[in-house]
Amino acid sequence: MKIKFICLIACLVIVSIQSYAQQPTATPVLYSEKTLKEMRQLQKSALNSDYAYRQTAYLTNNIGARLTGSPQAQRAVEYVADEMRKLGLEVSLQKLIVPHWVRGEERGELVEFAGMAKGTTQKIVLTALGGSIATAPEGLTTEIVVVGNSDELNALGREKVQGKIVLFNNKFDQAMAESGFGGAAYGLAGIYRRQGAIEAARLGAVGVLVRSVGGSQNRLAHTGGMRYDESVKKIPAAAVSFEDAEMIDYLAKQGKVRIKLLLTPQTLPDTTGYNVIADLKGSEKPDEIVIVSGHLDSWDLGTGALDDAVGVAVSMQVPYLLKQLKFKPKKTIRFVAWMNEENGLVGGRTYAQEQDSNLQKHFAVIESDLGASHPLGFYFAGKPEALPYFAPISKILSEQGAGLSQIQPGVGADIGPMTAKGVPSFAPWFDTRTYFNYHHTAADTLDKVNPKELAENGAVMAVLAYGLANLEQPLPR
Amino acid sequence: MKIKFICLIACLVIVSIQSYAQQPTATPVLYSEKTLKEMRQLQKSALNSDYAYRQTAYLTNNIGARLTGSPQAQRAVEYVADEMRKLGLEVSLQKLIVPHWVRGEERGELVEFAGMAKGTTQKIVLTALGGSIATAPEGLTTEIVVVGNSDELNALGREKVQGKIVLFNNKFDQAMAESGFGGAAYGLAGIYRRQGAIEAARLGAVGVLVRSVGGSQNRLAHTGGMRYDESVKKIPAAAVSFEDAEMIDYLAKQGKVRIKLLLTPQTLPDTTGYNVIADLKGSEKPDEIVIVSGHLDSWDLGTGALDDAVGVAVSMQVPYLLKQLKFKPKKTIRFVAWMNEENGLVGGRTYAQEQDSNLQKHFAVIESDLGASHPLGFYFAGKPEALPYFAPISKILSEQGAGLSQIQPGVGADIGPMTAKGVPSFAPWFDTRTYFNYHHTAADTLDKVNPKELAENGAVMAVLAYGLANLEQPLPR
Repeated sequence: MKIKFICLIACLVIVSIQSYAQQPTATPVLYSEKTLKEMRQLQKSALNSDYAYRQTAYLTNNIGARLTGSPQAQRAVEYVADEMRKLGLEVSLQKLIVPHWVRGEERGELVEFAGMAKGTTQKIVLTALGGSIATAPEGLTTEIVVVGNSDELNALGREKVQGKIVLFNNKFDQAMAESGFGGAAYGLAGIYRRQGAIEAARLGAVGVLVRSVGGSQNRLAHTGGMRYDESVKKIPAAAVSFEDAEMIDYLAKQGKVRIKLLLTPQTLPDTTGYNVIADLKGSEKPDEIVIVSGHLDSWDLGTGALDDAVGVAVSMQVPYLLKQLKFKPKKTIRFVAWMNEENGLVGGRTYAQEQDSNLQKHFAVIESDLGASHPLGFYFAGKPEALPYFAPISKILSEQGAGLSQIQPGVGADIGPMTAKGVPSFAPWFDTRTYFNYHHTAADTLDKVNPKELAENGAVMAVLAYGLANLEQPLPR
Repeated sequence: MKIKFICLIACLVIVSIQSYAQQPTATPVLYSEKTLKEMRQLQKSALNSDYAYRQTAYLTNNIGARLTGSPQAQRAVEYVADEMRKLGLEVSLQKLIVPHWVRGEERGELVEFAGMAKGTTQKIVLTALGGSIATAPEGLTTEIVVVGNSDELNALGREKVQGKIVLFNNKFDQAMAESGFGGAAYGLAGIYRRQGAIEAARLGAVGVLVRSVGGSQNRLAHTGGMRYDESVKKIPAAAVSFEDAEMIDYLAKQGKVRIKLLLTPQTLPDTTGYNVIADLKGSEKPDEIVIVSGHLDSWDLGTGALDDAVGVAVSMQVPYLLKQLKFKPKKTIRFVAWMNEENGLVGGRTYAQEQDSNLQKHFAVIESDLGASHPLGFYFAGKPEALPYFAPISKILSEQGAGLSQIQPGVGADIGPMTAKGVPSFAPWFDTRTYFNYHHTAADTLDKVNPKELAENGAVMAVLAYGLANLEQPLPR
């Protein structure tokens, strides 16, 4: 892994250097000396600030989980808007029509398996996937059939699946995650969480369980979004902890395993939600925009600290620090707290739609949504020819150990629709070795945020945003 | 830590050598060559056996949590007795009158705190302490007062405590645990779990919460035993996860925090339980006994894998391997699966009482109850003069990296009453750096058991038991 990784970085550096060298005219001026000095001061201030940590604490402990449509999500909108107004920013709330799913009770117990003591059950730790329908109020009691993937499911065929609950026991690659590629491991493992209900129902299954998509080894179920297909019957869907997936798999090899599954979530009528938008107007090109953002909604099991109070908080900190330091960005820095990243992406989609005719004026967009561990640099989605323009930013960030950059096709869910339209897009690049241990679980709480590392992320966001806002050249796009 | 530790080991070695040298007569013969050879064969077989792992899997996955008085505890008694009968051992069930506490619902939510969104609460992850009384059926809703220790509680006085719930927020020393001294960290942190209900009720508190005694950083509450004092009003008692303790502490610094606490445990009438006792008779001194043991009961949140299915399983494996290898111990090797270690210690106490007149015939007793991570050697509770007698055992164990020995005043809860009466007592000495992350939580499940390390523990138990059973000399006691 390491060798490939180092090669990759080396290649990027080469791309960067080459592109720079290929500039046909004289080397363009990227930054004034004043701006470079300000970027360094901003970095220093960010590294010493506890603003983002205090905001994270408030969003998580004082407000709590912020699932779209919940009173906490609304409270968070008001709170963040107020904080931005306090800084003197122009604040607007972008109205959204958002889904409103609420978790209910969720219980599982094995009621038949080899060797069980009479009158007992084995408790199963599970959690409804976001968007799942409920079981019957008395629960759903039936046999579990365990498969590792779609091929195994299809090999069983309708006869062996009909009327049963399918457990997709495909593993999250923890070794990959611990090697630093948590996002890749998550992407690979998530397939059955997203579409397992459709695949199982196609063969007549009456429910679906998926092994948690994440690295918890502490009897925590990882929730997350799932899909139905209107052409296929909807069935209840839940994630079981890794421990419970292992136990069911062990028992199913010995004989029939039956579960009583109770899920009582409700999908309520769509409701109103908001993106919080706050502008720090540019001094020279106020109509050109650099977005700093995170998503304000969270899953409801924990308090949404890593996912993504921290992203919102470090984004809030950018205008906070600029106001403190009395630095004026040349382009407008727009703070956005997105709503509904977790279960619909309505915020990001609506913004991109409503700004469709104005996307050319979006110079760059940044989203932080992979926690707040030590940052290594930033990801970039855009033209490789743009990379040389970020060299001064990376040089400054390298002083805090965050000098890497890497091109990726997508760098953030909420800004994805803008990335797809060619807007240069950025995200901090984190050490994600532990992020997916807590992701979408009850353990995503404030204590998981290391204040020092959060400050490091704050510095990356601030330097990147201010650097982009003050870049003297247009970016290739 | 390391330096002190190394000094300690060095001192023990010195004690050992000196004592040996002080033997007034010619060096006594400790073992025949045949026995030493057999001990090595036994070690090799244990390191290659999966018997203990399969037994652990059955006790945890097929039977499950085994709280005293539960059907699973009874099923485990029958299962283990059957397995021992299959080996041809003389099996007896020692009848016990045991407590019968059952966990019910357990829920906590903060219903008042600074900044809360209207109509919402903050969920608190908690679990009733074993033996706790219930709250009223509608729950107990009152203010929380946070203290770090008894001194802080007493400084508040009755006026500020009366009618409230006290949270003892004293920290488990994770750094100490991760340095290899998990047992010490546990011992130090456990004080308020054990007696917090008494201390809080003395000042008029109506409930008590304790920060979990353990290292979980995954929103898991650690249960465990607690005490009441007949002279003080009984109040409901629960452990909150470390995350929730931190959150409550944070919020309490900002203003009033009120919780709705619901606990519905029941203390049912005492019931019948059993120690499982199975003898592999000695060929030369059948009336002299060496006990190998673990405890069969477990807490009810997980499946009691590390605590203590593994201890039972490696003890079961000793007679299993001796039968397989057709080795005959000179003294009787007695397997014991203790009942009720977790919430009463009735098994260990009753055994010691009933055997009181026969304790002189108990040559040595061993209990494994600290998990099954890599073993470093063994702990010994007894006369330092006895240490030289174990040198051949340690020499063999050193070949698997388990050559250390250390004197401790007590080495196992169930065998404690015998230790107190002077019976030489032993326990495997483990790497306990992670044990207390799972201890008494829902995450104490089979997957936490590393098969290789379990086999290493099996080898320690087997070599130690067979070595003691075949020792040619009496032990100083």
